[in-house]
Amino acid sequence: MESANQEKQGGVLGHGRLRVRTLTDKLKSKVVEFCSNVKKLGEDDPRRVLHSLKVGLALTLVSLIYYYQPIYHNFGVSAMWAVMTVVVVFEFSVGATLGKGLNRGVATLLAASLGVGAHHLASLSGQIGEPILIGLFVFLQAAVSTFIRFFPNIKARYDYGLLIFILTFSFVSVSGFRQDEILELAHKRLSTVIIGGATCVIISIFICPVWAGQDLHNLLATNLDKVGDFLEGFVDEYCKTSSESTKEDEKTSFRGYEKVLNSKATEESLANFARWEPGHGRFKFRHPWKQYLQIGALTRQCAYRIEALNGNLNTHIQVSADSRSKVQEAIKTMSRESGKALKELASSVKTMTKPSSADSHIEKSKSAAKNMNSLLNSDLIWQDTKVDQLQELIQIATVASILIDIVNWVDKISDSVHQLSISANFQNLEPTVSPEKSQKPAAKSPTTHPDPHVVITVAEDGGEPNNSIQTNKIVNHDELKVPESSRNENSSCVNRCD
Amino acid sequence: MESANQEKQGGVLGHGRLRVRTLTDKLKSKVVEFCSNVKKLGEDDPRRVLHSLKVGLALTLVSLIYYYQPIYHNFGVSAMWAVMTVVVVFEFSVGATLGKGLNRGVATLLAASLGVGAHHLASLSGQIGEPILIGLFVFLQAAVSTFIRFFPNIKARYDYGLLIFILTFSFVSVSGFRQDEILELAHKRLSTVIIGGATCVIISIFICPVWAGQDLHNLLATNLDKVGDFLEGFVDEYCKTSSESTKEDEKTSFRGYEKVLNSKATEESLANFARWEPGHGRFKFRHPWKQYLQIGALTRQCAYRIEALNGNLNTHIQVSADSRSKVQEAIKTMSRESGKALKELASSVKTMTKPSSADSHIEKSKSAAKNMNSLLNSDLIWQDTKVDQLQELIQIATVASILIDIVNWVDKISDSVHQLSISANFQNLEPTVSPEKSQKPAAKSPTTHPDPHVVITVAEDGGEPNNSIQTNKIVNHDELKVPESSRNENSSCVNRCD
Repeated sequence: MESANQEKQGGVLGHGRLRVRTLTDKLKSKVVEFCSNVKKLGEDDPRRVLHSLKVGLALTLVSLIYYYQPIYHNFGVSAMWAVMTVVVVFEFSVGATLGKGLNRGVATLLAASLGVGAHHLASLSGQIGEPILIGLFVFLQAAVSTFIRFFPNIKARYDYGLLIFILTFSFVSVSGFRQDEILELAHKRLSTVIIGGATCVIISIFICPVWAGQDLHNLLATNLDKVGDFLEGFVDEYCKTSSESTKEDEKTSFRGYEKVLNSKATEESLANFARWEPGHGRFKFRHPWKQYLQIGALTRQCAYRIEALNGNLNTHIQVSADSRSKVQEAIKTMSRESGKALKELASSVKTMTKPSSADSHIEKSKSAAKNMNSLLNSDLIWQDTKVDQLQELIQIATVASILIDIVNWVDKISDSVHQLSISANFQNLEPTVSPEKSQKPAAKSPTTHPDPHVVITVAEDGGEPNNSIQTNKIVNHDELKVPESSRNENSSCVNRCD
Repeated sequence: MESANQEKQGGVLGHGRLRVRTLTDKLKSKVVEFCSNVKKLGEDDPRRVLHSLKVGLALTLVSLIYYYQPIYHNFGVSAMWAVMTVVVVFEFSVGATLGKGLNRGVATLLAASLGVGAHHLASLSGQIGEPILIGLFVFLQAAVSTFIRFFPNIKARYDYGLLIFILTFSFVSVSGFRQDEILELAHKRLSTVIIGGATCVIISIFICPVWAGQDLHNLLATNLDKVGDFLEGFVDEYCKTSSESTKEDEKTSFRGYEKVLNSKATEESLANFARWEPGHGRFKFRHPWKQYLQIGALTRQCAYRIEALNGNLNTHIQVSADSRSKVQEAIKTMSRESGKALKELASSVKTMTKPSSADSHIEKSKSAAKNMNSLLNSDLIWQDTKVDQLQELIQIATVASILIDIVNWVDKISDSVHQLSISANFQNLEPTVSPEKSQKPAAKSPTTHPDPHVVITVAEDGGEPNNSIQTNKIVNHDELKVPESSRNENSSCVNRCD
């Protein structure tokens, strides 16, 4: 009995100890996980760390108002509006900060004057009428402004301004009921808001600025590049036998296009911020950001079709290397050339140069699509098909159909980038390069069997006149952080496939 | 000379008048456009008008603090925090309001106490050390909190709380430098924030509440329904000759699935808000909202493939009614049955009943997909193909491949809805209905030629035991605002096509 009790006690104690140990272990692993998360977050985008420090700096600067008697004497308790403004207005990008700052400033000015007017009007109606009239004004103003906030266009650009309008109007007109120096109140609020807003804007512009426009620009180029990467890599993935299945990490880089599928919200908010930004770097004040959204939408259309293509790649059997070579060749050309075209477009967006170098790839992919259509319509490839090859043939036809569709969309993207290059004054490439390029499609008539060795070899060895373009291209891709490994993979697989 | 001058003057005057007239005309049309926009915005969702009135009401109520001496005496100038809280916290849905209110309340409590502590600590270090120490605290706190806001999980739920934390901490600790009654300041700020927050929460919950959870629930059902609509309608669109091209307005309803493509951001924010909401209607407090996001993601996968399918529909020639009937029949079954399955799933989500009625459609679509595969692999359909039919055949094969992929995704959606029905305790349908349904797939062996007339006729005439399910379904679709016209269109086209 006793020993049983002891055992039980020991069990309980041991159990308790065990629980404490698991708890501390859990806590430890949580802390380690948190630390590695912090590190990763900072490493992914070091501008985040900088932004945090900038917010700290702005807040410390603004709170100086409190410490120095001469300044504090002017503002008194209103000094806190400056602190509040900094906390609320300071955003990650210059555009967002400027947008919020301007919204807050203008809305405060408007609402403060209207609030003073409303208070004056109400005070004419005597002691009893005054609170009723002020209440009515506040109610009407809040209801109308809140409703206006539902307009999509206004919500995108002036949502914060309307919020501050409601806030300041209510605050000034209601405060007037208690304080006599309502004009001074409105004036103090306005000037502290301006001090806070100006601090934010100055710090965000002059200390390591984060431009939303630049981010949108990079995002567009990266997305084009990702979709291009898939299309270029698709050829190799497609002609692999199952024994050569791709390694997991390579697959991840191959699936980079997936981020493009849901890029709409990010692109739209960046474009909204970018419109507030002054000219910076290579972007003028009225840079055609809307055109970026259009290209982004077209890129998504490609990504949707790639998703369908990928579904086909995963569910069906792999195609053996020796069958239906003509059709397969056309597929390869379509995919590879449209991929290259997209990557050229990406690099021309990135470097802001005219996208003429993509044209030859577009032409090649289009003529391959045409060829594909006529090939599929001829009975040559179908005549001698055996029953066991049918499944394969159907898969090829499916992939071909989707690719023809993709080639059309890539053509539209190219048109849109050309339009952008005109409206945003993209530079011409150096004259030593461009004449060759424009000759390219003419010199080499669009065939269904362009030799991919030429393009790749030139890039690796150098020495031919074509190099300048090719090398230029590769430098740009490096900027877009395309891993070296995936490019090598491509060139080796091209050799193997052909 | 003079007459020329007069003419010129007359011309200038006339020109001026013309310009004034065009300006007023422009202004008029702008005003008319604005008014119609306002009307449309209100009619699209009348809850917007209600929300605006609710904000006005809350603001008026809170500003009562200013008007009544006994209450104002307690708070003084701090009363404005209540006004500010209402303006900033009151959001469209209960979840968003609750989330912001709780964030603001808890963050104010924490930051106020920490701010008081920081001020106390700093005041120990003498007159010179105090502002330096306070400045250091403010800087560190702002930098760390701003960095934490970058964590995606924290940003989704506690972003506003962290903002208020920075704000209150800076405000309280810095104000302490000037005001002696810092405890009173912190206490006043906390209590006015609570008054403002409570007003918002109470009004948003008890006066015509807008539940984010209910919205997410409806959105999911509507999206499933839209994709189902396309798949069901696709059959009819697909077997139309070019002379019967669809009218524009019908095409719009047909393209309803396009909104699904970019639904991710909306779904995620609704799910975030919904998690703050208490139990309401048929949803408990810990309703599995995450599962909704999963189903939403799967629905988008279907929508991506539909976009590819649609590209195929638009670019290729239409299929004539007499060719390749077997394959075409299988395509029709796949598309129609998976569409019906999705619509059943939508209605079961909508009514929160077990989705067993979709199973038979899933089974049918899956067996049609199997059939399709074996059909395409047999040489029967390819043997006697003439050259001019090849293009058509390839289109069919492409559509079939994509549809097989879609059938797989619909199956996954069905699994996910089943999981949801378990974790969210969906009700069983009445026992009089379910046995029949479970017999359905067994009684009618899955063929590639299910007679669509049966389904449609039963729904229209009524009288058979199957009716209860069918009628039930249609009532649910009405709830989902599927236009009557598109359903009629379907039934008539089914007759024509077969």
